[in-house]
Amino acid sequence: MPDTPITSPAEADSIVATAHACADAARVETLRHFRSTSLEADNKLDAGFDPVTEADKAAERAMRAIIKAQRPDDGILGEEYGTEPGTSGLTWVLDPIDGTRGFISGTPTWGVLISIANADGPIYGIVDQPFIGERFEGGLGRATVTGPSGTHPLRTRAARPLSEATVLTTFPEVGSPEDGRAFHAVAGAARLTRYGMDCYGYALVATGQVDLVIEAGLQVYDIQAPLAVVTAAGGIVTDWTGGSAKDGGRVIAAANPEVHAEALAILQREIGS
Amino acid sequence: MPDTPITSPAEADSIVATAHACADAARVETLRHFRSTSLEADNKLDAGFDPVTEADKAAERAMRAIIKAQRPDDGILGEEYGTEPGTSGLTWVLDPIDGTRGFISGTPTWGVLISIANADGPIYGIVDQPFIGERFEGGLGRATVTGPSGTHPLRTRAARPLSEATVLTTFPEVGSPEDGRAFHAVAGAARLTRYGMDCYGYALVATGQVDLVIEAGLQVYDIQAPLAVVTAAGGIVTDWTGGSAKDGGRVIAAANPEVHAEALAILQREIGS
Repeated sequence: MPDTPITSPAEADSIVATAHACADAARVETLRHFRSTSLEADNKLDAGFDPVTEADKAAERAMRAIIKAQRPDDGILGEEYGTEPGTSGLTWVLDPIDGTRGFISGTPTWGVLISIANADGPIYGIVDQPFIGERFEGGLGRATVTGPSGTHPLRTRAARPLSEATVLTTFPEVGSPEDGRAFHAVAGAARLTRYGMDCYGYALVATGQVDLVIEAGLQVYDIQAPLAVVTAAGGIVTDWTGGSAKDGGRVIAAANPEVHAEALAILQREIGS
Repeated sequence: MPDTPITSPAEADSIVATAHACADAARVETLRHFRSTSLEADNKLDAGFDPVTEADKAAERAMRAIIKAQRPDDGILGEEYGTEPGTSGLTWVLDPIDGTRGFISGTPTWGVLISIANADGPIYGIVDQPFIGERFEGGLGRATVTGPSGTHPLRTRAARPLSEATVLTTFPEVGSPEDGRAFHAVAGAARLTRYGMDCYGYALVATGQVDLVIEAGLQVYDIQAPLAVVTAAGGIVTDWTGGSAKDGGRVIAAANPEVHAEALAILQREIGS
């Protein structure tokens, strides 16, 4: 049994309206700083390079203010400002800039990730690319992209063998060395591998352009919005054992069950599960 | 002495108008097929994966028709339909879709490359990203980007040490194994490495967002437009020995002479030149 009741149409409309208001506000805050020469990138982690920008923090503050005003009973979990519990059984999960390395490099593949989850996982999500002006949404009966070429339904591509498939990941160095070997075993069996797309890669699965995204080391706020969008478009998102991907970690997003099964078998063989 | 006289203002206006007309026409032809599910990608080369699409061919045909109508004395060299000699001493160099792998994957980082060269190399070029609606132009006194955030001058970033720099390339497997080792020696000395940006990477150098693009195995039509744009923005583009990059091959595009020199020293040490 689900922990929360089925969402009513009025409740769904309220959630969708709040999510779009958050995405609109985050566009303003992120584009205010995107490609500005004064951009300062701090090192958030002592090890590695994980920049946090003023845009990241300002966008999350703006989204939190909207949620608190419009849906005060919901909880919030955000990358920059942590967790605030709610009472509704629903929690907003926010990553104001997914792909901060891409953001500080000026690329158009970072995104704003907004989703809302019950105890089972996300029920609705938005992946927004502010510079292009392209918004992918999925869940609560919706699966749509709105962007430079208008509004279109999202639909993942039909099954094809892995040997004919396109696989994406952000970095050639996927997660740990073991994670990387497993990824490259799948990539080596695919037709085409592309890098560097950040969260935009999941949008490309949802639009039917590519077959697979495989990543590792993800946080909960990295995956919940893409999970909602890809699933609503007809795809399948799991961890590398075929279990739930809602908590992040090692993730595979696939256009259809067939290519998911073929890639998952290779991942499981490589990681010895 | 240059092989052609200095371009007059009227001649420059004619060239720029023709280049923009070509870019406008290529936008229509490429976007007609971008993200269409019926897209067929042929294998142009027996070895490897080098897709050619209807969009590629249609865009080049449209650009050739414009050039023949507006500037019939110029020569044309295009990726898809080869070379047609002219009598003006100027040759248009066209790559209707640079980054065909990105194009068939739905990414927003492929581009239309349009340039015009005299015997010394390109004098003007355009890098256009039709889906975003973003156009970078450089040469004949111009250095400008027009896109979603309006029109802005292009200016490469100021010098910083390589250890603080961002370096881009399209594939982790840059050119030959030797090329790849040389690239990764530079990347290892830089702060941040990003992949998968296709020709958009050169635009990011020109806009002052990143410091270096390093590639190998380029054709003449892959590099002449980026070379014109980056140079006009204040950057420097050479081959890996510091010589002219106008014929392609191994190329380094840098934001300024300082980071160019620092990266070039590593490349030359690695390739033993």
